[in-house]
Amino acid sequence: MGLSQSMRAVCWFGPGEVGVVEVPKPQLERDDDVVLRVTSAAVCGSDLHALHGKIPKLAPGTVLGHEFVGVVEEAGPAVQRLSVGQRCAGAMFVACGRCAACLAGRHLKCAAYAMFGLGDLMGGLQGAQAEYMRVPIADMTLCPIPDGMEDEAALFTGDILATAYTGCVESGMGPGDVVAVVGAGPVGLLTVACARLFGPATVFAIDLVPARLDLARELGAFPIDASQGDPAELLRQATGGARADVVIEAVGNQSALETAWKVAGIGATVALVGILVSESWPQSAGNAWLRNLSIKTIVGQPYRHRQTLLRLIQSGVLQPQAIISERVPLAEAPEAYARMDSRLTLKPVLKFER
Amino acid sequence: MGLSQSMRAVCWFGPGEVGVVEVPKPQLERDDDVVLRVTSAAVCGSDLHALHGKIPKLAPGTVLGHEFVGVVEEAGPAVQRLSVGQRCAGAMFVACGRCAACLAGRHLKCAAYAMFGLGDLMGGLQGAQAEYMRVPIADMTLCPIPDGMEDEAALFTGDILATAYTGCVESGMGPGDVVAVVGAGPVGLLTVACARLFGPATVFAIDLVPARLDLARELGAFPIDASQGDPAELLRQATGGARADVVIEAVGNQSALETAWKVAGIGATVALVGILVSESWPQSAGNAWLRNLSIKTIVGQPYRHRQTLLRLIQSGVLQPQAIISERVPLAEAPEAYARMDSRLTLKPVLKFER
Amino acid sequence: MGLSQSMRAVCWFGPGEVGVVEVPKPQLERDDDVVLRVTSAAVCGSDLHALHGKIPKLAPGTVLGHEFVGVVEEAGPAVQRLSVGQRCAGAMFVACGRCAACLAGRHLKCAAYAMFGLGDLMGGLQGAQAEYMRVPIADMTLCPIPDGMEDEAALFTGDILATAYTGCVESGMGPGDVVAVVGAGPVGLLTVACARLFGPATVFAIDLVPARLDLARELGAFPIDASQGDPAELLRQATGGARADVVIEAVGNQSALETAWKVAGIGATVALVGILVSESWPQSAGNAWLRNLSIKTIVGQPYRHRQTLLRLIQSGVLQPQAIISERVPLAEAPEAYARMDSRLTLKPVLKFER
Amino acid sequence: MGLSQSMRAVCWFGPGEVGVVEVPKPQLERDDDVVLRVTSAAVCGSDLHALHGKIPKLAPGTVLGHEFVGVVEEAGPAVQRLSVGQRCAGAMFVACGRCAACLAGRHLKCAAYAMFGLGDLMGGLQGAQAEYMRVPIADMTLCPIPDGMEDEAALFTGDILATAYTGCVESGMGPGDVVAVVGAGPVGLLTVACARLFGPATVFAIDLVPARLDLARELGAFPIDASQGDPAELLRQATGGARADVVIEAVGNQSALETAWKVAGIGATVALVGILVSESWPQSAGNAWLRNLSIKTIVGQPYRHRQTLLRLIQSGVLQPQAIISERVPLAEAPEAYARMDSRLTLKPVLKFER
Repeated sequence: MGLSQSMRAVCWFGPGEVGVVEVPKPQLERDDDVVLRVTSAAVCGSDLHALHGKIPKLAPGTVLGHEFVGVVEEAGPAVQRLSVGQRCAGAMFVACGRCAACLAGRHLKCAAYAMFGLGDLMGGLQGAQAEYMRVPIADMTLCPIPDGMEDEAALFTGDILATAYTGCVESGMGPGDVVAVVGAGPVGLLTVACARLFGPATVFAIDLVPARLDLARELGAFPIDASQGDPAELLRQATGGARADVVIEAVGNQSALETAWKVAGIGATVALVGILVSESWPQSAGNAWLRNLSIKTIVGQPYRHRQTLLRLIQSGVLQPQAIISERVPLAEAPEAYARMDSRLTLKPVLKFER
Repeated sequence: MGLSQSMRAVCWFGPGEVGVVEVPKPQLERDDDVVLRVTSAAVCGSDLHALHGKIPKLAPGTVLGHEFVGVVEEAGPAVQRLSVGQRCAGAMFVACGRCAACLAGRHLKCAAYAMFGLGDLMGGLQGAQAEYMRVPIADMTLCPIPDGMEDEAALFTGDILATAYTGCVESGMGPGDVVAVVGAGPVGLLTVACARLFGPATVFAIDLVPARLDLARELGAFPIDASQGDPAELLRQATGGARADVVIEAVGNQSALETAWKVAGIGATVALVGILVSESWPQSAGNAWLRNLSIKTIVGQPYRHRQTLLRLIQSGVLQPQAIISERVPLAEAPEAYARMDSRLTLKPVLKFER
Repeated sequence: MGLSQSMRAVCWFGPGEVGVVEVPKPQLERDDDVVLRVTSAAVCGSDLHALHGKIPKLAPGTVLGHEFVGVVEEAGPAVQRLSVGQRCAGAMFVACGRCAACLAGRHLKCAAYAMFGLGDLMGGLQGAQAEYMRVPIADMTLCPIPDGMEDEAALFTGDILATAYTGCVESGMGPGDVVAVVGAGPVGLLTVACARLFGPATVFAIDLVPARLDLARELGAFPIDASQGDPAELLRQATGGARADVVIEAVGNQSALETAWKVAGIGATVALVGILVSESWPQSAGNAWLRNLSIKTIVGQPYRHRQTLLRLIQSGVLQPQAIISERVPLAEAPEAYARMDSRLTLKPVLKFER
Repeated sequence: MGLSQSMRAVCWFGPGEVGVVEVPKPQLERDDDVVLRVTSAAVCGSDLHALHGKIPKLAPGTVLGHEFVGVVEEAGPAVQRLSVGQRCAGAMFVACGRCAACLAGRHLKCAAYAMFGLGDLMGGLQGAQAEYMRVPIADMTLCPIPDGMEDEAALFTGDILATAYTGCVESGMGPGDVVAVVGAGPVGLLTVACARLFGPATVFAIDLVPARLDLARELGAFPIDASQGDPAELLRQATGGARADVVIEAVGNQSALETAWKVAGIGATVALVGILVSESWPQSAGNAWLRNLSIKTIVGQPYRHRQTLLRLIQSGVLQPQAIISERVPLAEAPEAYARMDSRLTLKPVLKFER
């Protein structure tokens, strides 16, 4: 590996500006690093936050991306479980696995926590939308893709599929529940797919975009088009008068919060999966008490759930790749970002065929 | 209701002897009783125990049967929730709902516990394979069948469907698990259907009868024909080397116990749903410790789970009537018993059209 | 029992007006009723709501009170488990035990739900601060007091002890947790006592009244006097920098909510046990998400937990009577209300020695 | 560190033969190793198995011991969290923290699993009863002892305290339960202490040795001296007729299993904490089914629970050092082994003051 080697990568240069440029190819820095040759990398909703300049301290020139699969190109001497040429799926962030926080399953509190491709505030690691990436603590960050499983089937286990599944687990949903998922974007759709694992009576998917609702139906949801009326009323009609036992808010904005509160029944749990920053509550604390609500805020836990998800994918129970809306070559990444930002495409995946 | 009214019922007269005879029509005895006009009653595996004279203290002339649906014919003055003409599903036993045991969900420990149709040892209530039956504590024992739901869809909620579901819940099974159900009789098949509610990677059904295995496949299982080889080996081949995380023994004999122990992996839970009396353990306690097994004995809990099951049936997620193998008029009950006893029919239902 | 019999009772006559007057002695109305001779009845925080005229639709002349123990004076013919002369503890509300809601442990959703002594909105039953009271569905509402247990030890199992315990259970607290209880009134103090059952590292009790904090210390808490500084800062000093894993808000006002939010650590659960009506949230939904909070609203569940609580009292692990601040004869009830309202007494109990 | 450095250690030389001899001082072998200067090391029941030659493939000359605390003497370059001079508590075995098994909390299934001081079958690591020991994967294996906590308070968190606590957690015990601990040896006594964290009504400790029963009483148990009568009968007398809801078998022999089965009530859980190899079941599988037992086999999980235990020790809730029966200098280790083997001492700790 010569010092002068370069590669192409999707970089952020300022609000609204992403481009595919030549940057130095990353190299092993620590003994437990891997250099991964990326084969597919998805564009995530949080990449759009980056695009819009909403990620604090993001430096121009940062390589974006944190949903990825690839092949081990080079492995440091302390790497135990991975060998050159092995296909792997990544996780969106790095943690050590060995400290008190990690052993308690709270990998986000690990001192080694670092997110890929979202700048210094999140740990400063370069991202995955590139021909190559450096992956620290590779034995943990990377997970071998089982033989026979396609790369794309494993692609979301390190981020949005794990997030959707975490929301379902932590909501406490169980057999016979009426579940409502607010928002049929990528996370909402995978939430529908994951919710089916918990035996609900019905999973409602609420959105405004017919194509997304169609996909939600294919994944097992009863679709509710909120442009056709009050979603709470439409849900009540479909259930014969009931409201939801569990509501998953999978958007992360004020309007979705309002909808979540409307469809929640007495005693319901509302799980907030969408990223919130400064949004206000739709109703007072007193209203929540009188309605006996439980409210759970959710952050995705890929290290807790990745292995379970891989087993479900391998057996055919989960097919998360169903939400991929287009495969585009790396060079067309800026256009894919633009289409996704305009909601013209749902979940684009960048391909790195060489 | 004159004193001299009579009805036809399936009665037990001694080992191997059941017949359809005229008996007095039951009447209200207590204020919270209902007299139910039975419309369908299933024959259960424990009825075969009765047939063979294996139920202690069973008096000749006892009306058999404890899986039933019907219509309220007459209601005592203290009945609050049921009205004449209402369609209802029954539970296999009676409990008060109000004592410490019932409030803890342990209805089998209630002082008022009484099973239908299994004689004095079990509470002495006459059974359900009759044109009419007296149902004590009717507000609890009977559950209205939701509008639009067929009688037969609700028929098993009070016994074998609740038992199958209890086994799944108490086994602790969860998403991604490899589940093995030993025995594809009525309880085993409903266990397959219920297990699907908990998100397993695969549910294996192990039996020797091809027709039962076909039905298991239709209900979502991967069938293993134990006549074709060692089921543990066949399971390992299908999983690529793994054994089961959760095993449900749904037969209740020595051979099924042996199979359950064989297919259980390290750290597995083995749930014993089939009725056991004096069977021995397949392996030593030391062996269980070295394999880190958990063993759960299961008794069906209709009062805990009936409402959840009805919601799942109503939404179409569960279709327990799929296991009904034949509908026979009351007069042909003895032949149905004989066919079931010879394993020529899986689950016969007696019909009381008048 | 003649028609003209009368008794003394604490009645509400309008905002600020309670008095002890002669009213007709209640009689059996339904077959499962008991007439209970009350021996002790506590004054509860919600009785002060009544005193202040904050309970909608409360009719002048209503007998107040819903925390009580007594002796069965007369039992209806359908009563199974209770006999005349038996000592019993009551629950604050009535439910049937037999409907779908009750069987799911959601007794508050029972169609028969009725609270004692809070007027027509809550079911219209007359209250317990009287020489006699009619208790419907007595087999369930009343619970025999075990031999050897004092009346006062069982007095709170039907209301505030059950509420405190429900809050602890539903908060999910477990061994090693740092727990903070906001408010050391009667419910807060019993929450401290119950929290000790779940193995916390430390239970902090936060209040402004030194006498209450002293009692909290006796019950096992580390007291924090919020008049001496910011309670969050005081808690951090005591833990060496940590905040609470679980916070129980046991007051039900805006100020206590603010404190609860301040002491909650990242990932904490905040359980809202105090009654809220229209209070606002201390912080935004976005703030809750960024801090990964879970919020649980709590209503007391005496029927789920009463038996567990009685076992703990019987074995000496719980001594809820420790919070009784004074015993007063019925005639002095108005003065006890006034003292409690002025926070001059913590938890008065009315005595009915005859 | 010269090559010729030596140290003293407790080595096994054959059945019945342990001695303190000079062996080479261990050195760093891998980058994430630590060389620990041991300050205290306990003798564990499994060391007695070694003494008796019951550990397969144990090589003469093996350094024994796996319960230890010490000070970091030297740290490899990849060690992140520990620095020279830091006081640490160890875990009895090593695991990687990063593989699928470890991330699922199943550290015993890790490919890197290796136990200290029990020979090649268990991973081949030299033990802790020595002046120095090499500790692999030190960031995980070792846990800093909080300031202000004595070494001996942390000594058992890596083995028997974690095992006792794991048994309590996995038994599912909860508030109000009647718990019976069979055996008041070191593990049984710590089980008593841990059980108190789960709010039981009563914890019974059953043993034959009065001194052990006295210590059990000090730790919060109600002692039952099995030499004074049938322990099941004695337990029933103490509870007023009940049997145990949860039984923890903390010995690991046939007689203790028999006792566990006798004291278990209907519906009880029996947790098997003592090491079993080829012991038989006290009763048939049918008997277990008729009594509705659950049986859990337990292996200690220090990595799951160590941090919780340290918090409880730090706050004074747990004081595991109470079971230490004697402190002996390293040179007297063989005598301590002999006394422990003869049950003349409960739990000796070897001290390494230099």
